Amino acid sequence: MKLRKISAIRGDFCVVAEDVKLGPEVAIYSFVNLYGCEIGAGTKIGSFVEIQKGARIGRYCKISSHSFICEGVVIEDEVFVGHGVKFINDKYPRATAASGRLQTKADWKVEPTLVRQGASIGTNATILGGLTIGRGAIVGAGAVVTKNVRTGAVVAGNPARVLSGGRGKSP
Amino acid sequence: MKLRKISAIRGDFCVVAEDVKLGPEVAIYSFVNLYGCEIGAGTKIGSFVEIQKGARIGRYCKISSHSFICEGVVIEDEVFVGHGVKFINDKYPRATAASGRLQTKADWKVEPTLVRQGASIGTNATILGGLTIGRGAIVGAGAVVTKNVRTGAVVAGNPARVLSGGRGKSP
Amino acid sequence: MKLRKISAIRGDFCVVAEDVKLGPEVAIYSFVNLYGCEIGAGTKIGSFVEIQKGARIGRYCKISSHSFICEGVVIEDEVFVGHGVKFINDKYPRATAASGRLQTKADWKVEPTLVRQGASIGTNATILGGLTIGRGAIVGAGAVVTKNVRTGAVVAGNPARVLSGGRGKSP
Repeated sequence: MKLRKISAIRGDFCVVAEDVKLGPEVAIYSFVNLYGCEIGAGTKIGSFVEIQKGARIGRYCKISSHSFICEGVVIEDEVFVGHGVKFINDKYPRATAASGRLQTKADWKVEPTLVRQGASIGTNATILGGLTIGRGAIVGAGAVVTKNVRTGAVVAGNPARVLSGGRGKSP
Repeated sequence: MKLRKISAIRGDFCVVAEDVKLGPEVAIYSFVNLYGCEIGAGTKIGSFVEIQKGARIGRYCKISSHSFICEGVVIEDEVFVGHGVKFINDKYPRATAASGRLQTKADWKVEPTLVRQGASIGTNATILGGLTIGRGAIVGAGAVVTKNVRTGAVVAGNPARVLSGGRGKSP
Repeated sequence: MKLRKISAIRGDFCVVAEDVKLGPEVAIYSFVNLYGCEIGAGTKIGSFVEIQKGARIGRYCKISSHSFICEGVVIEDEVFVGHGVKFINDKYPRATAASGRLQTKADWKVEPTLVRQGASIGTNATILGGLTIGRGAIVGAGAVVTKNVRTGAVVAGNPARVLSGGRGKSP
Protein backbone atom coordinates (compact mmCIF):
# COMPACT_ATOMS: atom_id res chain seq x y z
CA MET A 1 0.00 0.00 0.00
CA LYS A 2 1.25 3.51 -0.82
CA LEU A 3 1.72 5.46 2.40
CA ARG A 4 0.49 9.03 2.60
CA LYS A 5 2.57 11.84 3.99
CA ILE A 6 -0.05 13.99 5.64
CA SER A 7 0.21 16.75 8.17
CA ALA A 8 -2.25 15.10 10.57
CA ILE A 9 0.28 12.40 11.46
CA ARG A 10 2.08 13.27 14.69
CA GLY A 11 3.66 9.85 15.21
CA ASP A 12 5.55 7.18 13.30
CA PHE A 13 4.62 4.00 11.46
CA CYS A 14 1.13 4.98 10.36
CA VAL A 15 -0.89 3.47 7.55
CA VAL A 16 -3.46 5.93 6.21
CA ALA A 17 -5.00 4.81 2.93
CA GLU A 18 -5.56 7.22 0.05
CA ASP A 19 -9.33 7.06 0.51
CA VAL A 20 -9.42 8.32 4.12
CA LYS A 21 -11.16 11.69 4.57
CA LEU A 22 -9.62 13.81 7.31
CA GLY A 23 -11.05 17.09 8.59
CA PRO A 24 -8.81 19.99 9.65
CA GLU A 25 -6.68 19.65 12.79
CA VAL A 26 -7.02 15.89 13.08
CA ALA A 27 -4.12 14.37 15.06
CA ILE A 28 -2.99 10.80 14.37
CA TYR A 29 -0.42 9.22 16.70
CA SER A 30 1.95 6.26 16.09
CA PHE A 31 0.92 2.80 14.80
CA VAL A 32 -2.47 3.72 13.38
CA ASN A 33 -4.28 1.87 10.57
CA LEU A 34 -7.00 3.81 8.74
CA TYR A 35 -8.77 2.93 5.48
CA GLY A 36 -11.93 4.15 3.78
CA CYS A 37 -13.12 6.06 6.85
CA GLU A 38 -14.00 9.66 7.63
CA ILE A 39 -12.59 11.57 10.63
CA GLY A 40 -14.02 14.97 11.63
CA ALA A 41 -12.21 18.18 12.54
CA GLY A 42 -10.06 18.24 15.66
CA THR A 43 -10.41 14.54 16.47
CA LYS A 44 -7.46 12.68 18.01
CA ILE A 45 -6.60 9.08 17.10
CA GLY A 46 -4.36 7.22 19.58
CA SER A 47 -1.78 4.51 18.98
CA PHE A 48 -2.64 0.99 17.79
CA VAL A 49 -6.07 2.06 16.52
CA GLU A 50 -7.76 0.55 13.46
CA ILE A 51 -10.71 2.25 11.78
CA GLN A 52 -12.32 0.40 8.89
CA LYS A 53 -13.84 1.51 5.65
CA GLY A 54 -17.27 3.05 5.92
CA ALA A 55 -16.85 4.10 9.58
CA ARG A 56 -17.54 7.78 10.27
CA ILE A 57 -16.13 9.68 13.27
CA GLY A 58 -17.37 13.17 14.13
CA ARG A 59 -15.58 16.30 15.28
CA TYR A 60 -13.61 16.79 18.50
CA CYS A 61 -13.66 13.11 19.47
CA LYS A 62 -10.94 11.23 21.31
CA ILE A 63 -10.33 7.75 19.96
CA SER A 64 -7.98 6.13 22.47
CA SER A 65 -5.21 3.60 21.96
CA HIS A 66 -5.91 -0.04 21.03
CA SER A 67 -9.49 0.65 19.97
CA PHE A 68 -11.16 -0.87 16.91
CA ILE A 69 -13.94 0.84 15.00
CA CYS A 70 -15.51 -1.29 12.32
CA GLU A 71 -17.53 -0.78 9.18
CA GLY A 72 -21.07 0.28 10.02
CA VAL A 73 -20.15 2.44 13.03
CA VAL A 74 -21.08 6.13 13.06
CA ILE A 75 -19.74 8.23 15.92
CA GLU A 76 -21.12 11.74 16.32
CA ASP A 77 -19.22 14.79 17.65
CA GLU A 78 -17.44 15.07 21.02
CA VAL A 79 -17.44 11.36 21.81
CA PHE A 80 -14.81 9.72 24.01
CA VAL A 81 -13.81 6.18 22.99
CA GLY A 82 -11.58 4.62 25.67
CA HIS A 83 -8.50 2.44 25.33
CA GLY A 84 -9.12 -1.04 23.97
CA VAL A 85 -12.79 -0.39 23.08
CA LYS A 86 -14.01 -2.73 20.33
CA PHE A 87 -17.09 -2.40 18.15
CA ILE A 88 -18.82 -5.33 16.42
CA ASN A 89 -20.93 -5.37 13.26
CA ASP A 90 -21.89 -9.01 13.01
CA LYS A 91 -24.33 -10.97 15.18
CA TYR A 92 -22.97 -14.44 14.51
CA PRO A 93 -19.45 -14.18 13.17
CA ARG A 94 -18.06 -17.26 11.48
CA ALA A 95 -14.82 -17.69 9.61
CA THR A 96 -16.34 -19.59 6.72
CA ALA A 97 -19.60 -19.87 4.80
CA ALA A 98 -21.54 -23.15 4.76
CA SER A 99 -19.50 -24.17 1.72
CA GLY A 100 -16.31 -24.14 3.78
CA ARG A 101 -14.70 -21.23 1.93
CA LEU A 102 -13.86 -18.01 3.79
CA GLN A 103 -16.81 -15.67 4.24
CA THR A 104 -16.91 -12.62 2.02
CA LYS A 105 -19.00 -9.44 2.12
CA ALA A 106 -21.82 -11.34 0.41
CA ASP A 107 -22.11 -13.67 3.40
CA TRP A 108 -22.92 -11.15 6.07
CA LYS A 109 -25.10 -8.15 6.77
CA VAL A 110 -23.46 -5.27 8.61
CA GLU A 111 -25.32 -4.41 11.84
CA PRO A 112 -24.92 -0.61 12.09
CA THR A 113 -24.10 1.13 15.38
CA LEU A 114 -24.61 4.79 16.24
CA VAL A 115 -22.87 6.62 19.10
CA ARG A 116 -24.63 9.92 19.75
CA GLN A 117 -23.02 13.24 20.57
CA GLY A 118 -21.01 13.60 23.77
CA ALA A 119 -21.19 9.95 24.83
CA SER A 120 -18.22 8.38 26.65
CA ILE A 121 -17.26 4.73 26.25
CA GLY A 122 -14.98 3.41 28.98
CA THR A 123 -11.74 1.50 28.57
CA ASN A 124 -11.93 -2.09 27.30
CA ALA A 125 -15.69 -1.90 26.69
CA THR A 126 -17.18 -4.13 23.97
CA ILE A 127 -20.13 -2.81 21.94
CA LEU A 128 -22.26 -5.40 20.13
CA GLY A 129 -23.62 -4.64 16.66
CA GLY A 130 -26.89 -2.95 15.78
CA LEU A 131 -27.04 -0.65 18.82
CA THR A 132 -27.47 3.03 19.59
CA ILE A 133 -25.63 4.68 22.47
CA GLY A 134 -27.51 7.83 23.42
CA ARG A 135 -26.35 11.43 23.74
CA GLY A 136 -24.12 12.00 26.74
CA ALA A 137 -24.40 8.37 27.88
CA ILE A 138 -21.55 6.78 29.84
CA VAL A 139 -20.50 3.17 29.26
CA GLY A 140 -18.40 1.90 32.17
CA ALA A 141 -14.94 0.45 31.75
CA GLY A 142 -15.01 -3.22 30.79
CA ALA A 143 -18.74 -3.21 30.00
CA VAL A 144 -20.19 -5.54 27.39
CA VAL A 145 -23.04 -3.57 25.83
CA THR A 146 -25.79 -5.79 24.40
CA LYS A 147 -28.74 -3.33 24.30
CA ASN A 148 -29.35 0.29 23.34
CA VAL A 149 -28.20 2.83 25.92
CA ARG A 150 -30.58 5.74 26.55
CA THR A 151 -29.70 9.44 26.49
CA GLY A 152 -27.62 10.33 29.54
CA ALA A 153 -27.72 6.82 31.03
CA VAL A 154 -24.79 5.21 32.83
CA VAL A 155 -24.30 1.48 32.17
CA ALA A 156 -21.70 -1.03 33.35
CA GLY A 157 -21.06 -4.76 33.75
CA ASN A 158 -21.13 -7.89 31.60
CA PRO A 159 -23.75 -7.81 30.23
CA ALA A 160 -24.09 -4.07 30.82
CA ARG A 161 -26.97 -2.94 33.09
CA VAL A 162 -28.29 0.56 33.76
CA LEU A 163 -26.70 2.09 36.87
CA SER A 164 -28.43 5.44 36.67
CA GLY A 165 -30.41 7.84 34.58
CA GLY A 166 -31.77 7.69 31.12
CA ARG A 167 -35.16 6.11 31.90
CA GLY A 168 -38.06 6.97 29.66
CA LYS A 169 -35.98 8.58 26.98
CA SER A 170 -35.20 6.97 23.68
CA PRO A 171 -31.53 6.90 22.69
CA MET B 1 15.56 -9.17 13.38
CA LYS B 2 15.81 -9.71 9.62
CA LEU B 3 12.47 -8.93 8.02
CA ARG B 4 11.06 -11.25 5.42
CA LYS B 5 9.65 -10.05 2.15
CA ILE B 6 6.87 -12.53 1.57
CA SER B 7 3.91 -12.48 -0.71
CA ALA B 8 1.42 -13.13 2.09
CA ILE B 9 1.94 -9.63 3.48
CA ARG B 10 -0.81 -7.28 2.30
CA GLY B 11 -0.03 -4.45 4.70
CA ASP B 12 2.92 -2.50 6.04
CA PHE B 13 5.16 -2.72 9.08
CA CYS B 14 5.02 -6.48 9.63
CA VAL B 15 7.47 -8.62 11.54
CA VAL B 16 7.44 -12.21 10.33
CA ALA B 17 10.34 -14.25 11.65
CA GLU B 18 12.28 -16.64 9.43
CA ASP B 19 10.88 -19.66 11.26
CA VAL B 20 7.19 -18.95 10.58
CA LYS B 21 5.47 -21.56 8.39
CA LEU B 22 2.79 -20.09 6.12
CA GLY B 23 0.40 -22.12 3.97
CA PRO B 24 -0.69 -20.94 0.52
CA GLU B 25 -2.97 -17.90 0.23
CA VAL B 26 -2.39 -16.66 3.76
CA ALA B 27 -3.09 -12.90 4.07
CA ILE B 28 -1.27 -10.82 6.67
CA TYR B 29 -2.35 -7.20 7.21
CA SER B 30 -0.42 -4.26 8.75
CA PHE B 31 1.36 -4.28 12.13
CA VAL B 32 1.57 -8.03 12.66
CA ASN B 33 4.15 -9.86 14.79
CA LEU B 34 4.65 -13.57 14.05
CA TYR B 35 7.41 -15.88 15.25
CA GLY B 36 7.85 -19.63 15.38
CA CYS B 37 4.21 -20.32 14.52
CA GLU B 38 2.36 -22.17 11.78
CA ILE B 39 -0.53 -20.64 9.77
CA GLY B 40 -2.69 -22.81 7.50
CA ALA B 41 -3.85 -22.16 3.94
CA GLY B 42 -6.18 -19.27 3.29
CA THR B 43 -6.13 -17.88 6.83
CA LYS B 44 -6.31 -14.10 7.37
CA ILE B 45 -4.33 -12.32 10.09
CA GLY B 46 -5.59 -8.83 11.04
CA SER B 47 -3.67 -5.80 12.26
CA PHE B 48 -1.93 -5.60 15.65
CA VAL B 49 -1.92 -9.41 16.06
CA GLU B 50 0.85 -11.36 17.80
CA ILE B 51 1.21 -15.11 17.39
CA GLN B 52 3.93 -16.79 19.43
CA LYS B 53 6.26 -19.65 18.75
CA GLY B 54 4.68 -23.07 18.92
CA ALA B 55 1.15 -21.84 18.19
CA ARG B 56 -0.60 -23.58 15.29
CA ILE B 57 -3.47 -22.04 13.31
CA GLY B 58 -5.48 -24.14 10.85
CA ARG B 59 -6.84 -23.40 7.41
CA TYR B 60 -9.44 -20.77 6.46
CA CYS B 61 -9.44 -19.09 9.86
CA LYS B 62 -9.96 -15.39 10.55
CA ILE B 63 -7.68 -14.03 13.24
CA SER B 64 -8.98 -10.52 13.92
CA SER B 65 -7.15 -7.36 14.90
CA HIS B 66 -5.57 -6.90 18.34
CA SER B 67 -5.70 -10.61 19.19
CA PHE B 68 -2.92 -12.52 20.94
CA ILE B 69 -2.31 -16.23 20.44
CA CYS B 70 0.29 -17.69 22.72
CA GLU B 71 2.54 -20.71 22.80
CA GLY B 72 0.54 -23.85 23.51
CA VAL B 73 -2.54 -22.85 21.51
CA VAL B 74 -3.73 -25.03 18.63
CA ILE B 75 -6.57 -23.68 16.49
CA GLU B 76 -8.17 -26.04 14.01
CA ASP B 77 -9.65 -25.13 10.60
CA GLU B 78 -12.38 -22.53 9.94
CA VAL B 79 -12.19 -20.86 13.33
CA PHE B 80 -13.14 -17.21 13.87
CA VAL B 81 -11.04 -15.36 16.48
CA GLY B 82 -12.55 -11.93 17.19
CA HIS B 83 -10.87 -8.58 17.75
CA GLY B 84 -8.91 -8.27 20.99
CA VAL B 85 -9.23 -11.96 21.91
CA LYS B 86 -6.42 -13.07 24.23
CA PHE B 87 -5.31 -16.60 25.04
CA ILE B 88 -3.43 -17.58 28.23
CA ASN B 89 -1.04 -20.47 28.85
CA ASP B 90 -0.16 -20.01 32.48
CA LYS B 91 -2.37 -20.60 35.54
CA TYR B 92 -0.51 -18.35 37.98
CA PRO B 93 1.61 -15.87 36.05
CA ARG B 94 4.32 -14.13 38.01
CA ALA B 95 7.04 -11.81 36.76
CA THR B 96 9.80 -13.40 38.80
CA ALA B 97 10.78 -16.77 40.27
CA ALA B 98 11.11 -17.21 44.04
CA SER B 99 14.74 -16.12 43.70
CA GLY B 100 13.66 -12.67 42.52
CA ARG B 101 15.08 -13.02 38.99
CA LEU B 102 12.79 -12.91 35.96
CA GLN B 103 11.01 -16.16 35.23
CA THR B 104 12.31 -18.18 32.31
CA LYS B 105 10.86 -21.13 30.40
CA ALA B 106 12.16 -23.43 33.15
CA ASP B 107 9.87 -21.75 35.68
CA TRP B 108 6.54 -22.48 34.08
CA LYS B 109 4.57 -25.25 32.45
CA VAL B 110 2.59 -24.31 29.36
CA GLU B 111 -1.12 -25.11 29.75
CA PRO B 112 -2.19 -26.10 26.22
CA THR B 113 -5.47 -24.92 24.68
CA LEU B 114 -7.31 -26.44 21.73
CA VAL B 115 -9.95 -24.65 19.65
CA ARG B 116 -11.86 -27.19 17.55
CA GLN B 117 -13.01 -26.77 13.97
CA GLY B 118 -15.54 -24.07 13.12
CA ALA B 119 -15.67 -22.47 16.58
CA SER B 120 -16.19 -18.71 16.86
CA ILE B 121 -14.65 -16.64 19.66
CA GLY B 122 -16.25 -13.22 20.12
CA THR B 123 -14.53 -9.88 20.36
CA ASN B 124 -12.50 -9.10 23.52
CA ALA B 125 -13.00 -12.62 24.93
CA THR B 126 -10.32 -14.00 27.26
CA ILE B 127 -9.54 -17.73 27.17
CA LEU B 128 -7.79 -19.21 30.21
CA GLY B 129 -5.12 -21.87 29.75
CA GLY B 130 -5.59 -25.62 29.58
CA LEU B 131 -9.03 -25.56 27.93
CA THR B 132 -10.76 -27.07 24.91
CA ILE B 133 -13.36 -25.10 22.97
CA GLY B 134 -15.54 -27.58 21.10
CA ARG B 135 -16.40 -27.85 17.41
CA GLY B 136 -18.74 -25.10 16.25
CA ALA B 137 -18.98 -23.57 19.72
CA ILE B 138 -19.65 -19.84 20.11
CA VAL B 139 -17.93 -17.78 22.79
CA GLY B 140 -19.77 -14.48 23.31
CA ALA B 141 -18.09 -11.11 23.05
CA GLY B 142 -16.31 -10.11 26.25
CA ALA B 143 -16.58 -13.59 27.79
CA VAL B 144 -13.95 -14.85 30.22
CA VAL B 145 -13.77 -18.58 29.55
CA THR B 146 -12.62 -20.61 32.57
CA LYS B 147 -13.93 -24.10 31.68
CA ASN B 148 -14.09 -26.33 28.61
CA VAL B 149 -16.81 -25.40 26.11
CA ARG B 150 -18.77 -28.32 24.65
CA THR B 151 -19.37 -29.00 20.96
CA GLY B 152 -21.87 -26.50 19.58
CA ALA B 153 -22.42 -24.73 22.90
CA VAL B 154 -22.91 -20.99 23.26
CA VAL B 155 -21.25 -19.39 26.30
CA ALA B 156 -21.04 -15.79 27.51
CA GLY B 157 -20.31 -13.69 30.61
CA ASN B 158 -17.56 -13.31 33.20
CA PRO B 159 -17.01 -16.07 34.12
CA ALA B 160 -18.56 -17.57 31.00
CA ARG B 161 -21.74 -19.65 31.50
CA VAL B 162 -23.58 -21.89 29.05
CA LEU B 163 -26.42 -20.02 27.32
CA SER B 164 -27.52 -22.84 25.07
CA GLY B 165 -26.70 -26.16 23.55
CA GLY B 166 -23.83 -28.48 23.90
CA ARG B 167 -25.05 -30.50 26.90
CA GLY B 168 -23.96 -34.09 27.15
CA LYS B 169 -21.31 -33.85 24.51
CA SER B 170 -17.62 -33.72 25.23
CA PRO B 171 -15.70 -30.89 23.59
CA MET C 1 9.58 12.34 16.28
CA LYS C 2 13.27 11.41 16.18
CA LEU C 3 13.68 7.70 16.78
CA ARG C 4 16.31 6.46 19.19
CA LYS C 5 18.65 3.65 18.37
CA ILE C 6 19.06 2.02 21.75
CA SER C 7 20.39 -1.34 22.73
CA ALA C 8 17.27 -2.26 24.73
CA ILE C 9 15.25 -2.64 21.54
CA ARG C 10 15.04 -6.31 20.51
CA GLY C 11 12.32 -5.87 17.92
CA ASP C 12 11.37 -3.62 15.01
CA PHE C 13 9.21 -0.55 14.56
CA CYS C 14 9.58 0.94 18.04
CA VAL C 15 8.98 4.52 19.08
CA VAL C 16 10.99 5.43 22.18
CA ALA C 17 11.04 9.17 22.86
CA GLU C 18 14.22 10.96 23.90
CA ASP C 19 12.89 11.54 27.41
CA VAL C 20 12.34 7.86 28.32
CA LYS C 21 14.57 6.61 31.16
CA LEU C 22 15.61 2.98 30.77
CA GLY C 23 17.48 0.94 33.40
CA PRO C 24 20.10 -1.65 32.42
CA GLU C 25 19.00 -4.85 30.69
CA VAL C 26 15.56 -3.60 29.73
CA ALA C 27 14.15 -5.50 26.72
CA ILE C 28 11.71 -3.83 24.35
CA TYR C 29 10.01 -5.95 21.66
CA SER C 30 8.39 -4.87 18.36
CA PHE C 31 5.72 -2.16 17.96
CA VAL C 32 6.20 -0.37 21.29
CA ASN C 33 5.36 3.27 22.01
CA LEU C 34 7.10 4.86 25.01
CA TYR C 35 7.29 8.52 25.99
CA GLY C 36 8.24 10.35 29.17
CA CYS C 37 8.23 7.20 31.29
CA GLU C 38 10.74 5.34 33.45
CA ILE C 39 11.45 1.60 33.14
CA GLY C 40 13.53 -0.23 35.77
CA ALA C 41 16.37 -2.71 35.29
CA GLY C 42 15.63 -6.03 33.67
CA THR C 43 12.00 -5.27 32.79
CA LYS C 44 10.52 -6.67 29.57
CA ILE C 45 8.07 -4.70 27.41
CA GLY C 46 5.98 -6.77 24.96
CA SER C 47 4.62 -5.85 21.54
CA PHE C 48 1.89 -3.26 20.98
CA VAL C 49 2.44 -1.67 24.41
CA GLU C 50 2.05 2.05 25.12
CA ILE C 51 3.45 3.64 28.27
CA GLN C 52 2.70 7.33 28.79
CA LYS C 53 4.66 10.18 30.24
CA GLY C 54 4.93 10.19 34.01
CA ALA C 55 4.35 6.42 34.39
CA ARG C 56 7.02 4.58 36.40
CA ILE C 57 7.71 0.84 36.07
CA GLY C 58 9.99 -0.95 38.54
CA ARG C 59 12.65 -3.60 38.07
CA TYR C 60 12.17 -7.16 36.78
CA CYS C 61 8.60 -6.61 35.67
CA LYS C 62 6.90 -8.22 32.67
CA ILE C 63 4.67 -5.83 30.75
CA SER C 64 2.80 -8.05 28.28
CA SER C 65 1.61 -7.32 24.75
CA HIS C 66 -1.29 -4.96 24.03
CA SER C 67 -1.19 -3.36 27.49
CA PHE C 68 -1.60 0.35 28.16
CA ILE C 69 -0.05 2.10 31.14
CA CYS C 70 -1.11 5.69 31.56
CA GLU C 71 0.16 8.79 33.28
CA GLY C 72 -0.26 8.51 37.05
CA VAL C 73 0.52 4.79 37.28
CA VAL C 74 3.42 3.59 39.43
CA ILE C 75 4.33 -0.09 39.23
CA GLU C 76 6.80 -1.45 41.77
CA ASP C 77 9.35 -4.24 41.22
CA GLU C 78 8.58 -7.80 40.03
CA VAL C 79 5.06 -7.09 38.83
CA PHE C 80 3.38 -9.09 36.05
CA VAL C 81 1.06 -7.08 33.77
CA GLY C 82 -0.85 -9.42 31.45
CA HIS C 83 -1.74 -9.07 27.79
CA GLY C 84 -4.30 -6.40 27.01
CA VAL C 85 -4.34 -4.94 30.55
CA LYS C 86 -5.46 -1.30 30.57
CA PHE C 87 -5.05 1.27 33.31
CA ILE C 88 -7.27 4.37 33.70
CA ASN C 89 -6.49 7.73 35.31
CA ASP C 90 -9.76 9.58 34.92
CA LYS C 91 -13.05 8.95 36.74
CA TYR C 92 -15.37 10.56 34.19
CA PRO C 93 -13.62 10.79 30.85
CA ARG C 94 -15.14 13.13 28.31
CA ALA C 95 -13.81 14.15 24.93
CA THR C 96 -14.58 17.82 25.36
CA ALA C 97 -14.85 20.44 28.09
CA ALA C 98 -18.17 22.23 28.74
CA SER C 99 -17.13 24.81 26.16
CA GLY C 100 -17.19 22.17 23.43
CA ARG C 101 -13.45 22.30 22.71
CA LEU C 102 -11.27 19.23 23.29
CA GLN C 103 -10.26 18.66 26.89
CA THR C 104 -6.68 19.51 27.80
CA LYS C 105 -4.58 18.73 30.88
CA ALA C 106 -6.19 21.68 32.64
CA ASP C 107 -9.60 19.97 32.44
CA TRP C 108 -8.83 16.83 34.36
CA LYS C 109 -7.16 15.60 37.51
CA VAL C 110 -5.06 12.47 37.18
CA GLU C 111 -6.22 9.72 39.57
CA PRO C 112 -2.97 7.96 40.54
CA THR C 113 -2.70 4.16 40.76
CA LEU C 114 -0.07 2.13 42.61
CA VAL C 115 0.71 -1.53 41.94
CA ARG C 116 2.79 -2.94 44.79
CA GLN C 117 5.71 -5.33 44.54
CA GLY C 118 5.15 -8.81 43.15
CA ALA C 119 1.50 -8.34 42.16
CA SER C 120 0.15 -10.10 39.06
CA ILE C 121 -2.54 -8.59 36.85
CA GLY C 122 -4.25 -11.09 34.56
CA THR C 123 -4.83 -10.81 30.85
CA ASN C 124 -7.42 -8.28 29.62
CA ALA C 125 -7.99 -6.87 33.12
CA THR C 126 -9.11 -3.24 33.44
CA ILE C 127 -7.89 -1.19 36.42
CA LEU C 128 -9.88 1.93 37.29
CA GLY C 129 -8.08 5.08 38.44
CA GLY C 130 -7.12 6.04 41.98
CA LEU C 131 -6.52 2.49 43.26
CA THR C 132 -3.81 0.52 45.04
CA ILE C 133 -3.18 -3.13 44.21
CA GLY C 134 -1.41 -4.71 47.16
CA ARG C 135 1.86 -6.64 47.36
CA GLY C 136 1.63 -10.08 45.83
CA ALA C 137 -2.05 -9.67 44.94
CA ILE C 138 -3.52 -11.51 41.96
CA VAL C 139 -6.07 -9.89 39.64
CA GLY C 140 -7.86 -12.52 37.57
CA ALA C 141 -7.99 -12.46 33.80
CA GLY C 142 -10.74 -10.20 32.48
CA ALA C 143 -11.39 -8.59 35.87
CA VAL C 144 -12.63 -5.01 36.11
CA VAL C 145 -11.03 -3.66 39.29
CA THR C 146 -13.04 -0.86 40.92
CA LYS C 147 -11.69 -0.97 44.51
CA ASN C 148 -8.33 -1.34 46.24
CA VAL C 149 -6.96 -4.88 46.34
CA ARG C 150 -5.39 -5.97 49.63
CA THR C 151 -1.95 -7.53 50.09
CA GLY C 152 -1.97 -11.09 48.80
CA ALA C 153 -5.65 -11.07 47.84
CA VAL C 154 -7.03 -12.78 44.75
CA VAL C 155 -9.81 -10.90 42.92
CA ALA C 156 -11.78 -11.66 39.75
CA GLY C 157 -14.99 -10.76 37.92
CA ASN C 158 -16.75 -7.66 36.65
CA PRO C 159 -16.77 -5.80 38.95
CA ALA C 160 -13.92 -7.66 40.65
CA ARG C 161 -14.73 -9.41 43.95
CA VAL C 162 -12.38 -11.00 46.49
CA LEU C 163 -11.99 -14.75 45.89
CA SER C 164 -9.48 -15.41 48.64
CA GLY C 165 -7.02 -13.96 51.07
CA GLY C 166 -6.01 -10.49 51.92
CA ARG C 167 -8.57 -9.76 54.62
CA GLY C 168 -7.62 -7.37 57.41
CA LYS C 169 -4.53 -6.09 55.69
CA SER C 170 -4.30 -2.73 54.03
CA PRO C 171 -2.96 -2.69 50.49
